[in-house]
Amino acid sequence: MRIGFIGLGNMGSAIAARLLGAGHRLRVWNRSSEPAQRLATAGAEPLATAREACAAEVVFSILSDDRTVRDVLLEAALPAEPGTVHVNMATISPELSDELAARLGAAGCSYIAAPVLGRPDVAAAGKLNILAAGPAAAIERVQGLLDVIGQKTWRFGERAAQANVAKLAVNFMLAAAIESMGEAAALAGGYGIEPATLFALLSQTLFPGPVYEGYGRVIAESRFEPAGFKARLGLKDVRLALAAAEAVNAPMPVGSLVRDSMLEALARGQSEQEFGAVLGRAAIRRAGR
Amino acid sequence: MRIGFIGLGNMGSAIAARLLGAGHRLRVWNRSSEPAQRLATAGAEPLATAREACAAEVVFSILSDDRTVRDVLLEAALPAEPGTVHVNMATISPELSDELAARLGAAGCSYIAAPVLGRPDVAAAGKLNILAAGPAAAIERVQGLLDVIGQKTWRFGERAAQANVAKLAVNFMLAAAIESMGEAAALAGGYGIEPATLFALLSQTLFPGPVYEGYGRVIAESRFEPAGFKARLGLKDVRLALAAAEAVNAPMPVGSLVRDSMLEALARGQSEQEFGAVLGRAAIRRAGR
Amino acid sequence: MRIGFIGLGNMGSAIAARLLGAGHRLRVWNRSSEPAQRLATAGAEPLATAREACAAEVVFSILSDDRTVRDVLLEAALPAEPGTVHVNMATISPELSDELAARLGAAGCSYIAAPVLGRPDVAAAGKLNILAAGPAAAIERVQGLLDVIGQKTWRFGERAAQANVAKLAVNFMLAAAIESMGEAAALAGGYGIEPATLFALLSQTLFPGPVYEGYGRVIAESRFEPAGFKARLGLKDVRLALAAAEAVNAPMPVGSLVRDSMLEALARGQSEQEFGAVLGRAAIRRAGR
Amino acid sequence: MRIGFIGLGNMGSAIAARLLGAGHRLRVWNRSSEPAQRLATAGAEPLATAREACAAEVVFSILSDDRTVRDVLLEAALPAEPGTVHVNMATISPELSDELAARLGAAGCSYIAAPVLGRPDVAAAGKLNILAAGPAAAIERVQGLLDVIGQKTWRFGERAAQANVAKLAVNFMLAAAIESMGEAAALAGGYGIEPATLFALLSQTLFPGPVYEGYGRVIAESRFEPAGFKARLGLKDVRLALAAAEAVNAPMPVGSLVRDSMLEALARGQSEQEFGAVLGRAAIRRAGR
Repeated sequence: MRIGFIGLGNMGSAIAARLLGAGHRLRVWNRSSEPAQRLATAGAEPLATAREACAAEVVFSILSDDRTVRDVLLEAALPAEPGTVHVNMATISPELSDELAARLGAAGCSYIAAPVLGRPDVAAAGKLNILAAGPAAAIERVQGLLDVIGQKTWRFGERAAQANVAKLAVNFMLAAAIESMGEAAALAGGYGIEPATLFALLSQTLFPGPVYEGYGRVIAESRFEPAGFKARLGLKDVRLALAAAEAVNAPMPVGSLVRDSMLEALARGQSEQEFGAVLGRAAIRRAGR
Repeated sequence: MRIGFIGLGNMGSAIAARLLGAGHRLRVWNRSSEPAQRLATAGAEPLATAREACAAEVVFSILSDDRTVRDVLLEAALPAEPGTVHVNMATISPELSDELAARLGAAGCSYIAAPVLGRPDVAAAGKLNILAAGPAAAIERVQGLLDVIGQKTWRFGERAAQANVAKLAVNFMLAAAIESMGEAAALAGGYGIEPATLFALLSQTLFPGPVYEGYGRVIAESRFEPAGFKARLGLKDVRLALAAAEAVNAPMPVGSLVRDSMLEALARGQSEQEFGAVLGRAAIRRAGR
Repeated sequence: MRIGFIGLGNMGSAIAARLLGAGHRLRVWNRSSEPAQRLATAGAEPLATAREACAAEVVFSILSDDRTVRDVLLEAALPAEPGTVHVNMATISPELSDELAARLGAAGCSYIAAPVLGRPDVAAAGKLNILAAGPAAAIERVQGLLDVIGQKTWRFGERAAQANVAKLAVNFMLAAAIESMGEAAALAGGYGIEPATLFALLSQTLFPGPVYEGYGRVIAESRFEPAGFKARLGLKDVRLALAAAEAVNAPMPVGSLVRDSMLEALARGQSEQEFGAVLGRAAIRRAGR
Repeated sequence: MRIGFIGLGNMGSAIAARLLGAGHRLRVWNRSSEPAQRLATAGAEPLATAREACAAEVVFSILSDDRTVRDVLLEAALPAEPGTVHVNMATISPELSDELAARLGAAGCSYIAAPVLGRPDVAAAGKLNILAAGPAAAIERVQGLLDVIGQKTWRFGERAAQANVAKLAVNFMLAAAIESMGEAAALAGGYGIEPATLFALLSQTLFPGPVYEGYGRVIAESRFEPAGFKARLGLKDVRLALAAAEAVNAPMPVGSLVRDSMLEALARGQSEQEFGAVLGRAAIRRAGR
């Protein structure tokens, strides 16, 4: 099967390596050429243009945001070879997903949104959770490939945008958890309870799992660096969630206040710091601690 | 050891039964007499007054709220036999805890706050998490009893109020999780994704554990009844958290909006319905769904 | 007519002077004695206790807050001479007003709440707006005196607490106006428009009157001093409004966020600064300006 | 002077009539032709296209929103006759204003943003307040015409977008005032005080002027019809303010909650009702009244 792959950031490179490792032939493109050269040693064929990568039976792409997807993918994918299945793993707006689905559909192609949950190490282990939506028949055609990438594919319907919304909902939940941890720590701190003590209680009782434990540590230890996920990208996702919600008249007041807190953080010059630390510590800082 | 036990609601009865089951002799009091009579069959000695229950080496109490604690416990406990250790397991304000600690301390007694995490079935199994604070020596004296009641005792310091604050922080986290689940479902619902589908994704990936799974079901299925935890009691705890935070100048904006949402719910006549359903569905209802 | 007057702060002294100036005989009491001595030169009779001031046909009081009213007035006024009309001009909670009305009513007295709008210079000119509530017959009896104090008496019903609620609603409106001015200035400032320029537009077009003009100047010029109205007192009134609203299940989200902003301000050590500057500048500061 | 005029809605027609009344010759265009025909009786020359209207020394336009301005004006105005002064009176985003200024500037034209305060009857009387920004020399050239339209021109700087931001700030202030009136009425209503009684107090004491008086009546009387300003347009302006604020990292929490309240209103089907009634009554409805 001819497979094209567009976008070789940390996530894209790990996912592409999984596919190569499973014996698939991959023709790859990235804006800067180093990542493609690195993958070439594992057997990938580097391409000069994104358009060439789109000349394939299946095209995977994982680009950084709406603007890049619009600039690169729309440009490269159309006019298209009918029958191609595009699998877009980026966290983008449902609005753009609808537009891509419409335009690729009109060209006889199938468009699948398949954003993922998991960081690069999870991707390298093939343990991602894949949130997929789009025409069921098209998803069936690529399910074998998705199984190489992820531990499970969650399906959200025939409209690709649904997977994007699911991803935004998950990211919103992360932001809400961080905000509430910060506020709880602000309260507890006023009575001499260390954030780490409170977070240990939470994550070992009612709130197990990676989020409360991991962000608990990030907040308690004020780990503004390294920025595994930058503050401005956290704001971007909250903004996408709010815009998607606005389009269907859904108020998200916790989203609104996370957005306001992050705007203040950006005004303070924290845009490149770790999202979890920035958001969580903001609540504590407001309490003078 | 002479042990007094005050307050035999669902939680109190389960905890008292644990102590009896471990071979301790208990002298018990409750406002209405039936629960005391029931425990008598397991060996407890029913008393006519709370004051009699306070004539003991160790007194446990678990009453419903600040007002009841003030009316019953303050009245019954003072004047006190010096040396008594009072273990108050109720979810009350840190302010009242400070007052109790001061007055009992002045009488030569020790005051421990030890609110718990867990519902009656967890209490019956001795699996509660106990949040304890107060003089370390006093906690040591009762640690053996606490070990009968809970699977673990978390210590928060020498000031009893600290345990109350920790409990309020946990309850706030629950409310924040419910609110954010409701908002995420409101967003997803606008794109044809069922709440149950979204909550399954959350609880099986990033948000494992009883909270997201349990409240996910409550919200998805609109389980306003039975009210395991009533809306007005949920509001009460959020109010206590906000008041405790206000006393130390800690803003809790998510707490403020949960409070506002619950006030609206009470205005709609939902005070006796299940807190999780009322709060979670409110966010969905605001989106017209 | 025997008139007692309790509470000779800036407002109380100005109001008492008005009554003296109109030829009334006043027996006055204040916690510290200087203000009473000053008024003695204008003909007032200083008293040693608040209780003596309550032995009168009409008693005016204007004390600083719930706690002081509770400590001083409840103590001094009861047991009471039947028939006395108490006119309480303090900004207190409707809850306390209800309690005072009940207890004085039970003693055969009448209780009127009559908080005022206006600063001491307005009081000195007899131009206050008086917000009155209580038994209509009792208000009629003192209307002549109120006419000496204020330019107009607004009546809010037979229940004294209604006037307190009206006053809290007005003070909330002030806080809301200040908060929104701050936010508008934060927006405009991002585009190089000075706060003073924006506020001039507002107060000379759609928002005439003393509030937007006066607070506009306070905010634009960062007048944290002098504190005509201290930040912590502004928070106190917002808190009273929120508590009064909570008692009738009324959410006040703008109130909640003003409260949160003021808690942050107190955590920053601004409690003694001018309320308008603190609240308005907070919105601008959050935008990094 | 050749003057083109684009957009003859209620406001545009009133403004164009003012200019005609002052003896100016106007060449006019509107999407539907009736308004142009009506103005023809007053001496205007109806045109077939917006492009023809742009062939003039001065072009006024007042279209409904960003999309229409983008569709009509950008299309019609470029390529442009160098030296033309475009005066855009629409309430649009500063972002679009910047774009228009750049593109018209590149073509040798001047772009002025000049949104106005006032309804059609105010426009007909020439009593508008004009908020102007753009190159000072260009504003000078049209000042005589602006003086025919408005009672006063407020200048906000050399960058056209500044006037749009000022207009958005004013509209935000209106929304904030309405929201806070609603909340104050929700509080007062819980104590049996009618909204009209409270609003009379406000508008006759601290909050004089058209806003509190006019919207006070709209809210008190639940005047959802006629919709002088529709709910969805109110939301649009708040959204523009929030987006403009976001671009400069300015949090506007009152703006966020007005937005959330209006989204709920739209979800309830109130998009075509009067903005003031919808927003103000929402706060009262949330309190169960």
